[in-house]
Amino acid sequence: MRLKHLSIHHLELPLVSPFTTSFMTQTHKRCFLIEAQVETTDGALVTGWGENVALDRPFYSAEHLDGAAEVVTRWLAPALAAREDLNPERVSGLLSHVIGQPMAKASLEMAILDAALRAQGRSFHDYLGAVRTSVPSGVSVGIQDSTADTVRVIGGYIDEGYARIKLKIRPGADIAPVAAVREEFGDDLLFQVDANAAYTLADATTLAKLDDYGLLLIEQPLGEADLRQHSQLRSSLRTPICLDESIDSPEAAADAIALRAVDIINIKPGRVGGYLAARKIHDLAVANGIAVWCGGMLETGLGRAANAALAALDGFTLPGDISGSDRFFAEDITTTTIRMHDGIVEVPRGSGMGVDIDRAKVEKYRTRLQEVALP
Amino acid sequence: MRLKHLSIHHLELPLVSPFTTSFMTQTHKRCFLIEAQVETTDGALVTGWGENVALDRPFYSAEHLDGAAEVVTRWLAPALAAREDLNPERVSGLLSHVIGQPMAKASLEMAILDAALRAQGRSFHDYLGAVRTSVPSGVSVGIQDSTADTVRVIGGYIDEGYARIKLKIRPGADIAPVAAVREEFGDDLLFQVDANAAYTLADATTLAKLDDYGLLLIEQPLGEADLRQHSQLRSSLRTPICLDESIDSPEAAADAIALRAVDIINIKPGRVGGYLAARKIHDLAVANGIAVWCGGMLETGLGRAANAALAALDGFTLPGDISGSDRFFAEDITTTTIRMHDGIVEVPRGSGMGVDIDRAKVEKYRTRLQEVALP
Amino acid sequence: MRLKHLSIHHLELPLVSPFTTSFMTQTHKRCFLIEAQVETTDGALVTGWGENVALDRPFYSAEHLDGAAEVVTRWLAPALAAREDLNPERVSGLLSHVIGQPMAKASLEMAILDAALRAQGRSFHDYLGAVRTSVPSGVSVGIQDSTADTVRVIGGYIDEGYARIKLKIRPGADIAPVAAVREEFGDDLLFQVDANAAYTLADATTLAKLDDYGLLLIEQPLGEADLRQHSQLRSSLRTPICLDESIDSPEAAADAIALRAVDIINIKPGRVGGYLAARKIHDLAVANGIAVWCGGMLETGLGRAANAALAALDGFTLPGDISGSDRFFAEDITTTTIRMHDGIVEVPRGSGMGVDIDRAKVEKYRTRLQEVALP
Amino acid sequence: MRLKHLSIHHLELPLVSPFTTSFMTQTHKRCFLIEAQVETTDGALVTGWGENVALDRPFYSAEHLDGAAEVVTRWLAPALAAREDLNPERVSGLLSHVIGQPMAKASLEMAILDAALRAQGRSFHDYLGAVRTSVPSGVSVGIQDSTADTVRVIGGYIDEGYARIKLKIRPGADIAPVAAVREEFGDDLLFQVDANAAYTLADATTLAKLDDYGLLLIEQPLGEADLRQHSQLRSSLRTPICLDESIDSPEAAADAIALRAVDIINIKPGRVGGYLAARKIHDLAVANGIAVWCGGMLETGLGRAANAALAALDGFTLPGDISGSDRFFAEDITTTTIRMHDGIVEVPRGSGMGVDIDRAKVEKYRTRLQEVALP
Repeated sequence: MRLKHLSIHHLELPLVSPFTTSFMTQTHKRCFLIEAQVETTDGALVTGWGENVALDRPFYSAEHLDGAAEVVTRWLAPALAAREDLNPERVSGLLSHVIGQPMAKASLEMAILDAALRAQGRSFHDYLGAVRTSVPSGVSVGIQDSTADTVRVIGGYIDEGYARIKLKIRPGADIAPVAAVREEFGDDLLFQVDANAAYTLADATTLAKLDDYGLLLIEQPLGEADLRQHSQLRSSLRTPICLDESIDSPEAAADAIALRAVDIINIKPGRVGGYLAARKIHDLAVANGIAVWCGGMLETGLGRAANAALAALDGFTLPGDISGSDRFFAEDITTTTIRMHDGIVEVPRGSGMGVDIDRAKVEKYRTRLQEVALP
Repeated sequence: MRLKHLSIHHLELPLVSPFTTSFMTQTHKRCFLIEAQVETTDGALVTGWGENVALDRPFYSAEHLDGAAEVVTRWLAPALAAREDLNPERVSGLLSHVIGQPMAKASLEMAILDAALRAQGRSFHDYLGAVRTSVPSGVSVGIQDSTADTVRVIGGYIDEGYARIKLKIRPGADIAPVAAVREEFGDDLLFQVDANAAYTLADATTLAKLDDYGLLLIEQPLGEADLRQHSQLRSSLRTPICLDESIDSPEAAADAIALRAVDIINIKPGRVGGYLAARKIHDLAVANGIAVWCGGMLETGLGRAANAALAALDGFTLPGDISGSDRFFAEDITTTTIRMHDGIVEVPRGSGMGVDIDRAKVEKYRTRLQEVALP
Repeated sequence: MRLKHLSIHHLELPLVSPFTTSFMTQTHKRCFLIEAQVETTDGALVTGWGENVALDRPFYSAEHLDGAAEVVTRWLAPALAAREDLNPERVSGLLSHVIGQPMAKASLEMAILDAALRAQGRSFHDYLGAVRTSVPSGVSVGIQDSTADTVRVIGGYIDEGYARIKLKIRPGADIAPVAAVREEFGDDLLFQVDANAAYTLADATTLAKLDDYGLLLIEQPLGEADLRQHSQLRSSLRTPICLDESIDSPEAAADAIALRAVDIINIKPGRVGGYLAARKIHDLAVANGIAVWCGGMLETGLGRAANAALAALDGFTLPGDISGSDRFFAEDITTTTIRMHDGIVEVPRGSGMGVDIDRAKVEKYRTRLQEVALP
Repeated sequence: MRLKHLSIHHLELPLVSPFTTSFMTQTHKRCFLIEAQVETTDGALVTGWGENVALDRPFYSAEHLDGAAEVVTRWLAPALAAREDLNPERVSGLLSHVIGQPMAKASLEMAILDAALRAQGRSFHDYLGAVRTSVPSGVSVGIQDSTADTVRVIGGYIDEGYARIKLKIRPGADIAPVAAVREEFGDDLLFQVDANAAYTLADATTLAKLDDYGLLLIEQPLGEADLRQHSQLRSSLRTPICLDESIDSPEAAADAIALRAVDIINIKPGRVGGYLAARKIHDLAVANGIAVWCGGMLETGLGRAANAALAALDGFTLPGDISGSDRFFAEDITTTTIRMHDGIVEVPRGSGMGVDIDRAKVEKYRTRLQEVALP
């Protein structure tokens, strides 16, 4: 297989309602898709698509959208172009001389993987050997203005059927809303919290108070680089500790496990450098008895389909953040739309990553098209 | 910069009411101020002031007031006098051949720092890069005659608005008063205890009973030199352990952290050898996820202002012992008086350590003036 | 102090001879300088300069030159522009919401620091409180074609007077050249090796063979993220382990020390986020008995002067990579040129970072000038 | 027993030849003797003498001679004066509220101990239950100008019959002189080195080179407070590590043993707070299989006699620094002079610490007499 042509489609998709994280409020989702044309060994030309999940500012991780596109254009794509023996499994090795840039690398590998699977008429679900055909859908709830609002909003999601509730917390908005949710909805609710690195080791006593509420997990309480400090925190909590930002490679996962810093891993394929690295982390976690679940980066239908396939692997024993595409987007850029029913999302199992791109929609929402010159 | 002249002003300030520690009862605060005249490289003469925080007896640490003055006079000041390139950052290196004497060294460095900042028209707050302009004010409550008294006294401080209550404890006066305070004022009170090294490792079971009361921390339960024993104690308590007397240098802080003997550090600039060593300990603690707060030694307005600026640094995440000067002194020796309002002390941000010395007041309360002969 | 105006000068300086690292061969040094104009509180306008050390490709770290300039322009400079109370010590806190980008942040902080020091008529050497006025100069020797070449090249550097020799090694070019150098030049030569992350833990037995040659240290044998593996490697070597790429923050230094992964730290100010973070790492290392030395990134005279001042701090007990500017550049962009004599470089002690920028030279070698719009 | 009267005799004894340590060169030995008059329970008045070993500057430890006298006068002596049940074994407990000051406390306890033993007509040697009646005498050799000088000076001491040679070392004067001494005098010479805290952990590789020379021990390679760092150093050396300055109390000895920081302890009775604390450290070391030996502080015949008795205890398995008084002083202040014969010093076994004070000599060399007012 050989990479023949590469385009980068910069998109801006209107959101159904504004989406607020601790970093910013978005009314549009900005991202780029990579369209890769490859020539197979028997001379066929096949097109694959990958999605880049970087935010447009370097506030969640060191990458940002325009920077990721530049890295793809200047160093990543050229490093693949020369190879006759290109295949998805070789991509990460061919890009290893470029330091960092996991989201850029992930989007390029994803396009190659999509193309390779399409050339074989095979789905990503099949490629992974996943057995489940549907995955439970969890929802992530932002910090609300009051405890009463928190209870009301979560009540709405429970009514919609979500299988698991994740509540964002931060110092000063933690114990009270968690206690109120448990009080209102009982102990059977699958309920977890996400601290987005808002605490320090000095908050260990506060966090230990969460132990009374039977949470599934607390996600990323301390900073991204704080593996050692997570290990110390973990020894003083009963609530399982889940890591997100800290796990950016299979090696980081191995370190977290060896340092006893983690009980559960949130696998975001973009953050760890791609779907193949995500599978490696899944395998390594299973070998160590560590549970994993699949987080999200507000993906379009393309990434959403791929995440659903990944989450269908055996080791993904906890519900992830995979919800219906229509929860976020009025229109998506895939020909079929992923929807949640009864707390469940069916895994798309078409060729490639599972869904087809709707070119008309891509053009409708495209703000810029970059043709990448290959050597 | 060059040190031209040094005077030591020995003061005795009447206290508003007697102050009792586990060592003694004071009706007057004795201390000395160092007045340092330096010549800047462009020939200007600038005066800086430093405050010595040694007690008048060697009962808290190995230093005492008259001994500290003697060490300044005989060895410390002469070691600086010869240098043309004197600046605050060089002081500790120039004094390192003198063993111990952190409070003596701190007072001399403080005077040089005050002078250097005044020469630049800059405040200590700005020098540190502190961003906060006010700091919460905690109060330290001595051991009372009865649990009822403890509750009554603390109620008074809560009414005055203090942001955090610290209660002194000792064997036999620990669990009962702590339980009564929590019972009376609820779980939201920021509440911590200070054991002043009154326990031994054999008291671990007693101290573990404090775990039920949601304390912010227990301060210095064991002896000054007992890092290793604190580490053992820490493994059997949930209440975070804070060290005071044990941390007399950045190196001691590094050891305490490495031995897992500490959760929180009480930084007293005099005890650790000066404000620059205090900043190093702050930095080292932040790098290790260890919280710090700023303790006090019954400072005059001068040291009080400097402590407030230090406590405005990011890593000082817990309220310190910085209260209004008028809580202790009928009259202070600075031209402006530090006061607490609504549990908050504004950080003085004038040139130098933040406040100006009122020479008339210094003369009024001065018991002795030493002119130090420089080589 | 307030940031009024910012320009980015992109430079391309011809090298005296091609410079080869394991990443690439350079015939020109590309970098950018940040020119920051600030207004002091008394209304004076002062200009400071900072140098960015990112390579033009993301092959040493995740940053690259154009990407760093974009991050400065879009997020870093705007975050400083609004502040009335800007000072060098506040820069890193004001930029902490931007993840990663240590070299971009370092160059901006350096420009602010240079301006602030110039406003005070003070040198960086004085600001740090460094006492030494010169620093020994070490040389870094690339992998040669043969062991004979290695011996010949190193003999040349010894003749030039370099105080310490660092030899790059990689699997297959390690034991033999090291043995030959010791054989030829004896046991007194200050001699160390740099592995640039070329080994894995599986090479521990090979690396242990270096123990016979009395090396000062082996630098970064394993990958950047491999703190835990370095700790394991360290327990099977007698040669001290020095970390470079792995230490990108004071927190990473604290982790490496706590995990017993490091004996010696190579401090590169750009890599760790700036000169103030470099000082924090120095302080933290000294408190833990860890030696440090100052590495280089082929800086112009500006960064070279600042590195020399940093290396004049007490804890820099090993010779660094600070050599004469004329070893690399036919012409430099500073008004005075740093030169080595008898293995020693004098620390430049002019106002600001120590040297003045030669605007004519900046214009001569400038490939692009970016004016950054500030809000 | 009750303390009735206390005098402090400040002495200045001429030295036979100048004595150089890393701190200073002395031509006279300055010290003070404490003369304590006690009344026994049967009404007899008995006089005892103690010697203070503080240097006249705080360069070896935090105490200095005049400061120690002041602490004795103002706080230590008064704390004993009130007690009817005074005895030597109670002294340290009665003084424990005074922080630090081990040498001051040791000299006072020694005077009380001397008086108590004299009241019983008993020797210190008998009190300790020591069995040996003589102790081997080692010599301490300062850093010489050249390796040749080192060999020559040591040859002289070997000829005089000293049982063990201790050589001071420092960076740059370590491996070469040690190698030369071994080369010249063979492997059977009892030979050890004293680093006086002149190294840092970063020098571990250099120090490991000493492993080739079969040294009895290396004394205090790192700083006084560096127990943890000594532990790390110890794991990379084969030469046994002996601690001196780091051990200032039985608790510090316990810590050093628990942290695996020490193989051998140099017990200096003044440094650890007195002869009874010295015995406790001896006992604790024996219980842990740690060897001890007795160092010196250039004592007069009084302290020298007491040290000899202490060194006669079973656990003192290594030769100490106890040499003849006439090696240092033209005239001593005791009625009999301690002399070395054939590498051996006889333990003085008269009443009290073993020797009698020659009042005429005390008056001859006295520079000041302080009568201490007791409450």
